[in-house]
Amino acid sequence: MNSNVRIGICGYGNLGKGVELAAQRANDIDLVGIFTRREPSGLSSRFGNKIYSYDCINDFADDIDVMVICTGSKTDLMSMTPRLTEKFNTVDSFDTHKKIREHFENVDDVARKTRHVSMISCGWDPGLFSLARIFFTSFLPDGNSYTFWGKGVSQGHSEALRSIEGVIDAKEYTIPDSDVVARIKNGNVIGDTSKYHIRECFVVCSEDADIEKIYNEIINMPDYFKGQKTVIHFVSAEEMKKNHNGMPHGGEVLRIGKTSDKTEDLCKLALTAELPSNPEFTGSVLCACARAVKETAEKGDYGCKTMFDVPPRFYLNDQILSDLFSQGRLL
Amino acid sequence: MNSNVRIGICGYGNLGKGVELAAQRANDIDLVGIFTRREPSGLSSRFGNKIYSYDCINDFADDIDVMVICTGSKTDLMSMTPRLTEKFNTVDSFDTHKKIREHFENVDDVARKTRHVSMISCGWDPGLFSLARIFFTSFLPDGNSYTFWGKGVSQGHSEALRSIEGVIDAKEYTIPDSDVVARIKNGNVIGDTSKYHIRECFVVCSEDADIEKIYNEIINMPDYFKGQKTVIHFVSAEEMKKNHNGMPHGGEVLRIGKTSDKTEDLCKLALTAELPSNPEFTGSVLCACARAVKETAEKGDYGCKTMFDVPPRFYLNDQILSDLFSQGRLL
Repeated sequence: MNSNVRIGICGYGNLGKGVELAAQRANDIDLVGIFTRREPSGLSSRFGNKIYSYDCINDFADDIDVMVICTGSKTDLMSMTPRLTEKFNTVDSFDTHKKIREHFENVDDVARKTRHVSMISCGWDPGLFSLARIFFTSFLPDGNSYTFWGKGVSQGHSEALRSIEGVIDAKEYTIPDSDVVARIKNGNVIGDTSKYHIRECFVVCSEDADIEKIYNEIINMPDYFKGQKTVIHFVSAEEMKKNHNGMPHGGEVLRIGKTSDKTEDLCKLALTAELPSNPEFTGSVLCACARAVKETAEKGDYGCKTMFDVPPRFYLNDQILSDLFSQGRLL
Repeated sequence: MNSNVRIGICGYGNLGKGVELAAQRANDIDLVGIFTRREPSGLSSRFGNKIYSYDCINDFADDIDVMVICTGSKTDLMSMTPRLTEKFNTVDSFDTHKKIREHFENVDDVARKTRHVSMISCGWDPGLFSLARIFFTSFLPDGNSYTFWGKGVSQGHSEALRSIEGVIDAKEYTIPDSDVVARIKNGNVIGDTSKYHIRECFVVCSEDADIEKIYNEIINMPDYFKGQKTVIHFVSAEEMKKNHNGMPHGGEVLRIGKTSDKTEDLCKLALTAELPSNPEFTGSVLCACARAVKETAEKGDYGCKTMFDVPPRFYLNDQILSDLFSQGRLL
């Protein structure tokens, strides 16, 4: 119970590097190895950690307590998390909200059969923000919940911009519409979520590109920009590199409700996050989840879990928990 | 598992009435009875609930799933929670931070012996704010946590004012010092918690009172006002009744930290609460805790618990949880 958590990282993009950094900064987490589907010899770790081919990942089943899977929701996790859960306890950050139940059931099936624990949909949203939503709903049942994202870079929207012909580079910032937020905080119920955010795009085009055509293609792109408040800036490659190279994100979960029919004043609960680096913070949450998965597995409580299913104290280093509790500084 | 939670309320002051109201508004909680150490015939319930003498409370052991104990931390809970846990699963809101470990151990001992579950220190602080502190510490380990209370009425400080000779009535509002909050949000570490709050007092004196003497007695009162930023208003009984009859409270848990040595920008996590009625919101949290206690007891996981020990989903009505989860609206 008191020994360190031995983790592996599967997938070495931005998120994998975030988990590596968080593990490096935690004294109770040991990183055994990083696994990649690319050619490992072409990659190097900033901390000198070992990088192995994905093909040999199963050889590490006895050396790793929890495999933290850092590949994408769109194409990888729905198949990779169940497959890796055959041999490992796992953590993933699956965020396709509509498919979470399907993913949960697939993973749960494998985890129970092979006596593993897999915690899915971990991070800040889904993750920390999901926790805020369930606590706020439980403690203030007569009310409405709202989630705002930003100001921050949306990877999905940025990729959508870059897929347009003539676009060399692009970044989209999601920004909560402050008027809408203020109206909701004053007790107005605004159900149309397409009004919650402004989508600010910075776009670098090739020299011969048809700017007007690109503009129209953006504002009419279904699911991403159509019907949304969209602002587009065409900028130079230099400006893009200079001013838009970070990956900040954040947001707010808001609950507005009442504890009495008679009280006129509204109860307001809010969780806000300002994250200078989205992958670094997400990596830090995934490391905490690896702790929780190890403890859950040690209790023999096998199956698929979300952050709703695990006691809060499982995320914290035992020693820190005990010290803070004794000092009366947590409760 | 799907049947309603049958609760009792022990203690019928502001908090007991808050629990009663929350139970009335929840369709999965049945209030079996209210228990008081006063003469029951002198009390009446605004919803027509039955009020019994504390002396016969044990007769209800088979009819009540969870007893919600709504008496005070100062004189009652340390003896009453262990005693009632002999016969009942219990919830309390014990908030003397320095004695939480001692109280936990006393209650744990009884609960294990008699096969009950007791959840102590529930509410918003300790409670919801404790949850924010443990999650923020787990997910952003390299940082500092701060808790600010207010603007809101402090019962303890108000009582301290009323204990002064010549004071007829008094109310103290605790208000976070906005300069201190801003400096902390900008990354300054301010360890001296006596600087965090302003203490604004409204005091009604008897006609023949020595105002100057009362003023000096307040600003020199150890543990409550001495060394703190204190503002005192002497007001009429009419003004007190008209402008200061509510029990609002609230506050903020703040975590400022870093996810990288290299990143200059600070990560900021915050939970804020604005509560027009402190006892109503606390009552609502205690009802959610009664749900969690029932589920924990049904699993046979006996002993003393805090909100750190119970999975978040235990607080929510099963039906609401299932609906929201299916709709992808919680995770």
